[in-house]
Amino acid sequence: MTSDASPFADIRRLVTEMPGPDADAVAAIRARDASLTKPPGALGRLEGLVEWLGAWQGKAKPTLDRPMVCVFAGSHGVVARGVSAFPAAVNRQMLENFAAGGAAINQLCAAYGLGFRVFDLAVDLPTGDICSGPALDEKGCVATMAFGMEAVAAGTDCLAIGEMGIGNTTIAAAIYAALYGGEPEHWVGRGTGLDESGLRRKAEAVRLALETHAGHLDDPLTVLARLGGREIAAMAGAILAARLQRVPVVLDGYVATAAAAVLHALDPHALDHCIAGHLSAEGAHRDVLDRLGLQPLLALDMRLGEASGAALALGLLKGALACHRDMATFEQAGVSGKSEG
Amino acid sequence: MTSDASPFADIRRLVTEMPGPDADAVAAIRARDASLTKPPGALGRLEGLVEWLGAWQGKAKPTLDRPMVCVFAGSHGVVARGVSAFPAAVNRQMLENFAAGGAAINQLCAAYGLGFRVFDLAVDLPTGDICSGPALDEKGCVATMAFGMEAVAAGTDCLAIGEMGIGNTTIAAAIYAALYGGEPEHWVGRGTGLDESGLRRKAEAVRLALETHAGHLDDPLTVLARLGGREIAAMAGAILAARLQRVPVVLDGYVATAAAAVLHALDPHALDHCIAGHLSAEGAHRDVLDRLGLQPLLALDMRLGEASGAALALGLLKGALACHRDMATFEQAGVSGKSEG
Repeated sequence: MTSDASPFADIRRLVTEMPGPDADAVAAIRARDASLTKPPGALGRLEGLVEWLGAWQGKAKPTLDRPMVCVFAGSHGVVARGVSAFPAAVNRQMLENFAAGGAAINQLCAAYGLGFRVFDLAVDLPTGDICSGPALDEKGCVATMAFGMEAVAAGTDCLAIGEMGIGNTTIAAAIYAALYGGEPEHWVGRGTGLDESGLRRKAEAVRLALETHAGHLDDPLTVLARLGGREIAAMAGAILAARLQRVPVVLDGYVATAAAAVLHALDPHALDHCIAGHLSAEGAHRDVLDRLGLQPLLALDMRLGEASGAALALGLLKGALACHRDMATFEQAGVSGKSEG
Repeated sequence: MTSDASPFADIRRLVTEMPGPDADAVAAIRARDASLTKPPGALGRLEGLVEWLGAWQGKAKPTLDRPMVCVFAGSHGVVARGVSAFPAAVNRQMLENFAAGGAAINQLCAAYGLGFRVFDLAVDLPTGDICSGPALDEKGCVATMAFGMEAVAAGTDCLAIGEMGIGNTTIAAAIYAALYGGEPEHWVGRGTGLDESGLRRKAEAVRLALETHAGHLDDPLTVLARLGGREIAAMAGAILAARLQRVPVVLDGYVATAAAAVLHALDPHALDHCIAGHLSAEGAHRDVLDRLGLQPLLALDMRLGEASGAALALGLLKGALACHRDMATFEQAGVSGKSEG
């Protein structure tokens, strides 16, 4: 039996079918940018963001008419080991808070005119404790990825990916440790606000998980199934589906990036359609983003999750696109161009 | 005759009358923040921004109902020395572009719902060439500061300060060199896109200006008059007036910061009501912000001016305030708080 017959075969095939950037769209965007009433390059990274949008939308005139924030929620068996400052009951309570419009992400979506959907990945059914066995079996992992792929609604022109799940910074740290090696202490952080003893328990949980699954962590998708969680598998599916549907993706912080890291380990070009919305306060996030070649758009010391950093980044994107789309050209405005040197 | 009889006496007096932060407002904001459905500190710098807004507005419930972007435009005699990549005629053309809604700042204000006003500081009448004499006499400088003070409209609850003026990165560099010492080469950058020979001319102009005014650069307001420009004097007035009227200020980039630096040299607390909207691509901006104790909110490699970086920062502020103002509390949402460690 070849590896193609594994439950992951369809995922591996889709990774080989990822489209590339639209070079014609980028050329058109650059030409228009050069005509706008500003010195060349003066809008800095805003200019590159518009090129990125158009490259992956496949549009010479990029749009942000239907930006969508998707938050994936999961529950983790490892929480029983005391790795979080908050109890697992918060998962269900926060789903209700999202539905009632009371969470931070609700306010950010309202402030920037972003669509918002939450996906409940069975938060009342925690995954297996990664310290003693797999979080998910391979079929369950694939099914959850497939569920995440369905999250990309038709017509969405930019997707922000985030999550909520008590204990999932431990899960993310375990995935990074499995993918990149190094000591658990390097990868774990205080998450929602762990104290010193909690931080030690968290590192110990990651160490134990790596020992438990030793010898089975060479394949990134196996890492995802054994050490991951449902929200992380679903985010990986959503990021991949977005690529296939030409929807650029804004990643949220430390946990959302773990889903991206699994795809990147499968194919180093798998995240070319993604930007990092922000740099998390969780210390190891910078190391991960460096490994993924992603430069965060914001660095505001945030560590909330819920796609909150990605939503702020979408707010910036709206400004960037407005400049490109609506500024006058030198010709329209009768403004003199750059003098001859 | 004492220095109090100088044209700057009123300015010096106003600096002594600056109000401090509202500690009660900050305490109320922190108490509410602790009740919101998120881990303490999880919104990172967004939380501090809301405290800052309330501290300087003097409001326990800070507002952003009437944010205003003010762009001050001036014209500079030093441009005749070939220190800019664009001709001085662009000043008038860009004023028309602002009025017609075609500039980058127009799009950013529309995207984030910000008020916008432009102040024409006699752009058809360049200031004196700083290499051969003062830019402004002291009375003219004070009158221009007073004009800038009037720019803070009643009801404004946050003010973004920016500028437009061909050649004014040279002016800003001269001010920094006068205030802080160091070689002209350290302070000058490529501005709107100077080539190598232009950059050398720019450094030479700063060197010559410092020589011309040697012995008269101990007082920051004299530096402003002799080496400044009308838009910089007006911005200094606006920043000071905002403080007196309890309006927090978001500074734009390299040139706007020169106005702030003059006030800071008069009183190290003069900018406590200001944040730096962004870090400019103009290399010396970081050094200046470090000297002023300001940590930029954004670093997007922008170098446009026009308050463009400050406007993006106001967009972030809107998100920050929305979270604080509208999130549910733990009690309202029935969400469990942090576990006992």
